[in-house]
Amino acid sequence: MTDMATPKLSAKELERLLEAEFPGMFKREGGYGIEKVWYGGSRICKYFSPRSLRPGGTIAGTTLMALADFAPYVAILASLGWVPLAVTTNLSINFLKKPAQRDLIAEARMIKFGKRLAVAEVSIRSHGDDDLVAHATATYAIPAPEVK
Amino acid sequence: MTDMATPKLSAKELERLLEAEFPGMFKREGGYGIEKVWYGGSRICKYFSPRSLRPGGTIAGTTLMALADFAPYVAILASLGWVPLAVTTNLSINFLKKPAQRDLIAEARMIKFGKRLAVAEVSIRSHGDDDLVAHATATYAIPAPEVK
Amino acid sequence: MTDMATPKLSAKELERLLEAEFPGMFKREGGYGIEKVWYGGSRICKYFSPRSLRPGGTIAGTTLMALADFAPYVAILASLGWVPLAVTTNLSINFLKKPAQRDLIAEARMIKFGKRLAVAEVSIRSHGDDDLVAHATATYAIPAPEVK
Amino acid sequence: MTDMATPKLSAKELERLLEAEFPGMFKREGGYGIEKVWYGGSRICKYFSPRSLRPGGTIAGTTLMALADFAPYVAILASLGWVPLAVTTNLSINFLKKPAQRDLIAEARMIKFGKRLAVAEVSIRSHGDDDLVAHATATYAIPAPEVK
Repeated sequence: MTDMATPKLSAKELERLLEAEFPGMFKREGGYGIEKVWYGGSRICKYFSPRSLRPGGTIAGTTLMALADFAPYVAILASLGWVPLAVTTNLSINFLKKPAQRDLIAEARMIKFGKRLAVAEVSIRSHGDDDLVAHATATYAIPAPEVK
Repeated sequence: MTDMATPKLSAKELERLLEAEFPGMFKREGGYGIEKVWYGGSRICKYFSPRSLRPGGTIAGTTLMALADFAPYVAILASLGWVPLAVTTNLSINFLKKPAQRDLIAEARMIKFGKRLAVAEVSIRSHGDDDLVAHATATYAIPAPEVK
Repeated sequence: MTDMATPKLSAKELERLLEAEFPGMFKREGGYGIEKVWYGGSRICKYFSPRSLRPGGTIAGTTLMALADFAPYVAILASLGWVPLAVTTNLSINFLKKPAQRDLIAEARMIKFGKRLAVAEVSIRSHGDDDLVAHATATYAIPAPEVK
Repeated sequence: MTDMATPKLSAKELERLLEAEFPGMFKREGGYGIEKVWYGGSRICKYFSPRSLRPGGTIAGTTLMALADFAPYVAILASLGWVPLAVTTNLSINFLKKPAQRDLIAEARMIKFGKRLAVAEVSIRSHGDDDLVAHATATYAIPAPEVK
């Protein structure tokens, strides 16, 4: 899988298409930002919002799981084109370290691109920190292309 | 593990304690309801809200993941008493069927209760339907009891 | 999923067909026994052999993983008929308790039977013990039926 | 985690210590070879043996799972010293591509080294091929150090 290959949709095009489906999803507080996409991968920011804090000052696990699911979804759309009906069939996440009260950065890397199944590995870090906050693998069922 | 053993905290006590930490979490629209707890398990309702719908009329995977994480957490609190610092270390979920536009019911069953780790299995169904919408396993690190 | 529905292949037929592919797999020491199959499930015995012991007197994790993979495979063959090219795409296992130096019993239960993917949950116990030694979920890709 | 840090045990020392526990495990046909260890990782070879082939000419999933479990175990021993009682608590593996009839190479990378839990990510490839054959994550419980 050549990381450098040209994606079918750019980060900007994806933000525009996704914003139309999920209005407000890319807002600066508590929303997402698509930082970069390439064939087989994506780099996604989840902007910090005090509202996703939990007692003890940690960011909710739900926020991390949503990010772990979203980053490969963006990588699939960037690589295959607009196939919004790709659905997650399995997600397995390890929570490794308490996240800081900062933006989160997720990098998704597709480790399989089959005709029917795509599998990704996702690394999540607090912005500016090398340690992993969480690591996930996720599988997506790719809808068969429509016969025209 | 005797399912029928008396839990240390009742469903009502748990709703009260958790509501104090997470105000609004048990509201009737889009919130949770603790239907039943026993030693080693819980039955949780996630009330339907049109706001968690996604294009295509499905309930967001994030909603299912949050429920799969919350149900064992409640089972652990019910069984061990108020140990709010139990933290999820791993969650693995299979999405099996498109959920209906109805309340979701999750049943968590602890399959291991060690001194340091607890492991649960979770079945999620649409209210009134026998088929599984999702199935998860999750592991929690239990904090060591404080020495007094 | 009706557990009681008639399977397409019986335990005896499956042992005969599988033995032809994997000679010796059902021998009494260290081999498997198909105790029961039904539509959507199987009950498999892994006979104890001192050779699968590890230092500390435990049964090798590899033995448990192989059993967790084999039990759903048998359940799929019993339910769908002879589709030996069903392949495992994901297996996630939790090791819960040190197994006794005895036969192991695995029960597989299909929790999804799609056209392309089948998902199973597997419970493994030491013979005669109620506690779980291990619990797994596994996903299988089902080959498309041949067009005749 | 500095990959380049000095491990406590070298590849050679580990082969000697493990061979004493599991005689024959490093034989050239069908056995393992510890190619390299560093603080937080390992590179393990599983030598090809025609005996681990399955109908269709594929290497048994069991062989891949055993390798996915062994590589992080070696990385933990190399990094922490001789703690042979580290036990696997969870292993989740995705099978991505049919392995070639060649040696397999596994690279384990520790993504968490806590006091009680260690988590690893494992990439398995056919020797000389860039594509992943399988990818796994595994969690290990580290025994508390003995008080002297």
